[in-house]
Amino acid sequence: MPDSALLARQPVGIVGLGLIGGSLGLDLQACGVEVRALVHREATAARARQRGLAGTVSTDPSVLAGCGLVVLALPLDRLLDPDPRLLAALPPQAVLTDVGSVKAPVLEAWRGLLARAGRAAQAALFVGGHPMAGTASAGVEAGQARLFEGRPWVATPDARTDPGALAAVRALAERVGALWITCAAADHDRAVALISHLPVLVGAALLATADRAAAAEGLGDLARSLASSGFADTTRVGGGNPELGTLMARTNREALLAALAAYRESIGALEDCVAGQHWDGLAAQLATAQALRPAFLGVGSPRPEPGSET
Amino acid sequence: MPDSALLARQPVGIVGLGLIGGSLGLDLQACGVEVRALVHREATAARARQRGLAGTVSTDPSVLAGCGLVVLALPLDRLLDPDPRLLAALPPQAVLTDVGSVKAPVLEAWRGLLARAGRAAQAALFVGGHPMAGTASAGVEAGQARLFEGRPWVATPDARTDPGALAAVRALAERVGALWITCAAADHDRAVALISHLPVLVGAALLATADRAAAAEGLGDLARSLASSGFADTTRVGGGNPELGTLMARTNREALLAALAAYRESIGALEDCVAGQHWDGLAAQLATAQALRPAFLGVGSPRPEPGSET
Repeated sequence: MPDSALLARQPVGIVGLGLIGGSLGLDLQACGVEVRALVHREATAARARQRGLAGTVSTDPSVLAGCGLVVLALPLDRLLDPDPRLLAALPPQAVLTDVGSVKAPVLEAWRGLLARAGRAAQAALFVGGHPMAGTASAGVEAGQARLFEGRPWVATPDARTDPGALAAVRALAERVGALWITCAAADHDRAVALISHLPVLVGAALLATADRAAAAEGLGDLARSLASSGFADTTRVGGGNPELGTLMARTNREALLAALAAYRESIGALEDCVAGQHWDGLAAQLATAQALRPAFLGVGSPRPEPGSET
Repeated sequence: MPDSALLARQPVGIVGLGLIGGSLGLDLQACGVEVRALVHREATAARARQRGLAGTVSTDPSVLAGCGLVVLALPLDRLLDPDPRLLAALPPQAVLTDVGSVKAPVLEAWRGLLARAGRAAQAALFVGGHPMAGTASAGVEAGQARLFEGRPWVATPDARTDPGALAAVRALAERVGALWITCAAADHDRAVALISHLPVLVGAALLATADRAAAAEGLGDLARSLASSGFADTTRVGGGNPELGTLMARTNREALLAALAAYRESIGALEDCVAGQHWDGLAAQLATAQALRPAFLGVGSPRPEPGSET
């Protein structure tokens, strides 16, 4: 039976050595844990070996044999539709966990995959996880030591989850310094719709507006010249990877639509104040926003507030 | 007649020694220009003297006597409704310029003020200006050397503006290393509505949405725990000073309403894609946003892109 001492007894497998997988490999080895990694391409394997991201790195799925816990550190699309050879190579007794940014679709997909592979019992050993430690960096060069320190690592167990498997994943997360949080998968997905997926659309819409409206009035060059760090910050995630943004929206569509509906109301309330010249009302709403923000800058916020240019 | 050599002949007056006024005082003195400053309170004057923000600092408006160019570095509300003693103390031949973040209302207010004071001729010497060098820092401690270097300094001359006065203000801006840009006041105000004022409401609405929607679903603590640097960046200016945000909206209301209407369309187009599951369309819009953003990160962007966490 898996338990929190699993890391001491058996190697940990990592599938994918991008930012999350590579960082995890570095930290686990620094703690004395044996790490075996599976990657897609031989060139990646060679570079991962040079960087020391795992003790063993291979493109052959059999590298995972003997691992007691396997971390599926794949991009969301490949996680939702994994290579059948990967599935076949996962040790049948191994605890499985992922690092995807949506949870209910991943749990549903993997429970189905395992059942269809005649391994329904292993579904209890699958622990949905989401370390909140993303950066724009990706690929085999992205992994860095101590990425997870002080950052939330969310797990989404339910009644079917084996307690020992959950304890093993918790031990992994805490070994690399993360803050362990558990919640229902649907709650995770609704929360990230609000704080992670909605900001992508909000920022993308701002970029589209500034470009389109400025161009319509012949102000394109001026608007671009005057855009300062306030505009840059507000649009940072909105100007991010379009494939990733689309994938998030696809996999978390309902929660994102609910978030968008709520957002339409919020910006409408501000617009009403401006249109109706309700300046006290606008000031009150902006004061509420100012008061709310510090609570959102807690453990999930990886860097200190910058010099705060506006 | 004023001209670009004015700085070499006569002292420069600065009214207000906050971030902009104080920084300007430091830089001008470093260039050998004599600076005389007027501040509101004696404690501010004492501290400004300690910090060396100007050669002479006084709470007595007569300190401005003899200045050939006076920079009104006041907060927007005090700039729009200045102390009558300040107006009376401005040398009648002096070039006047301001640093306010909206331009048409400032020009209108000051042309009216000067006309009512029997100084209509001096209106030609008033040059509307806006150095794009704001930070969240304010007050007498905020001034810093080389704040303006490489940043846009916008001026909004029109047919009534004296060319020599404009040349004098340009010489001032370029002396401190700023990039000189001129445009119509209305164009400036429409451009900043898009790239500076709209982001405040966009970010404030995101904070309100995350708080309200998360609370309605019992996810408040979870959403706050999971909020990462992407959320922090997107809401930075939205969680800023509510009085300043309200003042910007009041003084630039029509342009802001037009920007909000355009924004509603932009976010609606994204929402339509998510609702209709038009994933190629969503990916295309997000790719456009990604491609647009670098053009908005030019001279107006004061700091390098941070580590780019998402």
